[in-house]
Amino acid sequence: MALLIDRIGELVTNDPAVGERPLGIIRNAAVVVRDGRVVWVGPRTRAQPCDEVWDAAGRAVLPGFVESHSHLVFAGDRAEEFAARMAGRPYEAGGIRSTIAATRAASDHELDAHLARLAAEYRRQGTTTLEVKSGYGQTVRDEERSVRLAHAHTAEATLLAAHVPPPEFAGRVDDYVHLVVEEMIPACAPHARWIDAFCEVGAFDAEQTRAVLDAGRRAGLGVRVHANQLTAGPSVRLGVELGAASVDHCVHLSPADVDALAGSDTVATLLPAADFSTRGPYPEARRLLDAGVTVALGADCNPGTSYTTSLPFVIALAVRELRMTPSEAVWAATAGGAAALRRDDVGRLTPGSRADLVVLDAPSHVHLAYRPGVPLVAQVFTGGVVLPPA
Amino acid sequence: MALLIDRIGELVTNDPAVGERPLGIIRNAAVVVRDGRVVWVGPRTRAQPCDEVWDAAGRAVLPGFVESHSHLVFAGDRAEEFAARMAGRPYEAGGIRSTIAATRAASDHELDAHLARLAAEYRRQGTTTLEVKSGYGQTVRDEERSVRLAHAHTAEATLLAAHVPPPEFAGRVDDYVHLVVEEMIPACAPHARWIDAFCEVGAFDAEQTRAVLDAGRRAGLGVRVHANQLTAGPSVRLGVELGAASVDHCVHLSPADVDALAGSDTVATLLPAADFSTRGPYPEARRLLDAGVTVALGADCNPGTSYTTSLPFVIALAVRELRMTPSEAVWAATAGGAAALRRDDVGRLTPGSRADLVVLDAPSHVHLAYRPGVPLVAQVFTGGVVLPPA
Repeated sequence: MALLIDRIGELVTNDPAVGERPLGIIRNAAVVVRDGRVVWVGPRTRAQPCDEVWDAAGRAVLPGFVESHSHLVFAGDRAEEFAARMAGRPYEAGGIRSTIAATRAASDHELDAHLARLAAEYRRQGTTTLEVKSGYGQTVRDEERSVRLAHAHTAEATLLAAHVPPPEFAGRVDDYVHLVVEEMIPACAPHARWIDAFCEVGAFDAEQTRAVLDAGRRAGLGVRVHANQLTAGPSVRLGVELGAASVDHCVHLSPADVDALAGSDTVATLLPAADFSTRGPYPEARRLLDAGVTVALGADCNPGTSYTTSLPFVIALAVRELRMTPSEAVWAATAGGAAALRRDDVGRLTPGSRADLVVLDAPSHVHLAYRPGVPLVAQVFTGGVVLPPA
Repeated sequence: MALLIDRIGELVTNDPAVGERPLGIIRNAAVVVRDGRVVWVGPRTRAQPCDEVWDAAGRAVLPGFVESHSHLVFAGDRAEEFAARMAGRPYEAGGIRSTIAATRAASDHELDAHLARLAAEYRRQGTTTLEVKSGYGQTVRDEERSVRLAHAHTAEATLLAAHVPPPEFAGRVDDYVHLVVEEMIPACAPHARWIDAFCEVGAFDAEQTRAVLDAGRRAGLGVRVHANQLTAGPSVRLGVELGAASVDHCVHLSPADVDALAGSDTVATLLPAADFSTRGPYPEARRLLDAGVTVALGADCNPGTSYTTSLPFVIALAVRELRMTPSEAVWAATAGGAAALRRDDVGRLTPGSRADLVVLDAPSHVHLAYRPGVPLVAQVFTGGVVLPPA
């Protein structure tokens, strides 16, 4: 059974060898799918007949978005804290501790249902590969179940036990790091692909971060880091040194940080929706791109600083605020996300890749930035299968 | 036949007399609808039984958004011009003239189908009252058919013949104003409720604007003005002097402009999505709000500077960039829009108002800003009738 996706007005392949640079665009294109994989792409007049045909009616087709940074295992929301922050009012009751308390108090079923709802929201807006972090449990039991629940939804589960030092360990952060290294990582590694840590003033310092990431590596996990979000610390260079797949946020970068990234295969994952929702400064994407660094874009969905699941919104923001071109932003949210997860089967539409496609209600990928806020994702295919309506 | 909309977690009525200020919020509420109108709102435990029940399942319900500023009668798009502008590249072929040429060349059927598509897009995102301007025709024939087509979709059709001086009248703007006053207004007034003009350096000066707006008033049209968008000109004060329902954009305001607005019943309609998509400065909403000016928010959908139909996006932007609170932004996109159209039957949910309601997939109106880019509009009622799925 082969499926022909026909009459594609603009096909973004992310393979410059087969179409217009930089996105490898083929116009008046078709895609042939078999067994969940792309088996052929090209001009529609050269497509072979197939058993089944899906008509794209001249619209744009892109690889599904690849989200490499999300925090979806939690309970509760922090809308009041958000409203207070936007109004410049203090709000003492909120913060990550309220999410940790709500998450610990929730049942597995509640956490799973909430995660499933947010994952479906991501998917409806075109995200077909999704990394999910733990990090609101911060006990052995709660981190283990967070990663286990994430793993049931995605192959890209990340242990972020080192998110913030939990309240019980105030003034004893090294003791918490010891617990992470000695107990949490062994308990959680079977469910995770990645280890992550938030290296920042007030969270974990470079040595603590190194201890956690090294222990994760020894347990077979790949490395990613929350790096240089609030201050220009050592974590981008630490990530590069440890062979991290991605260093995430990168708002405050020294020239040495940019040089280190440019000489590495570590991806810089930018999360401008977090800067939008905290009214923080935006990362300087142009410095990174102009230096040849591989840049990914993510939504960073979490209840505290970025409660969005919309990669289209992130693309529009990256064009407006990070001065990325629409092509660079679309690449970063697809192929860039795939690079940040060290995946070569997603983020592109070429023979052999997963048949994860987004059909836009628009003639061009440019419309994702040109039409901000408009739900343009008309159809999503995951593994060649049309997403059922919500 | 009465319809009970039951189990509303948070009902925004915009009537401070019936609920929590400033939005008149009632929690655990219900709404009773009959013959397309709201006949009762209150705590659900006090609602009378009805023939039919619609379960809001604890979600937030708001008045439908009231968009008082859109340009939907046009053909073509300007995605390439947008991409060039964002990259800082020159783009000579574009501009409003390309939209005028495409609009003149399009058939009535093409213009109507495109307008219907955009109006439906607005509606799916919660807009239940929509003003639509002409302004890409700029001949008697093309302005007349633009307003006629708009009028077939909405009672809020606006003649914006004085949008920019058309190319045929280069160096003879007064001749074009004469044509507008002597021929276009008489031909178009039967289809329009409003007269509008773009008062700006390079468009129409104060005297030309006054001539157009005065002629529109004499033909029975209400007045609105594109005012102080790119420079601090005289048009806000001119609008107030002429009794305009709204002065729109208001990016560059003098203290005298703010004072004039504060002493009038003219609404300041802010359109931050245009500033987003042109990378322009944002209007200073706080100066207006703190002075007691009535503020509305609109999306300004048009193919050149703001190709969005999403009031939820505009609300999120107004909170982030204009420093409006979520409550102020929601009020401005509902009751504010209604004030800008001098309507008292929409923009609120109180007995007698139209049963135009938005059900959010969220527990609170705050989520419209807290969850930027997420399509949160789960259901739309217009005149008490559920919008059919797209």
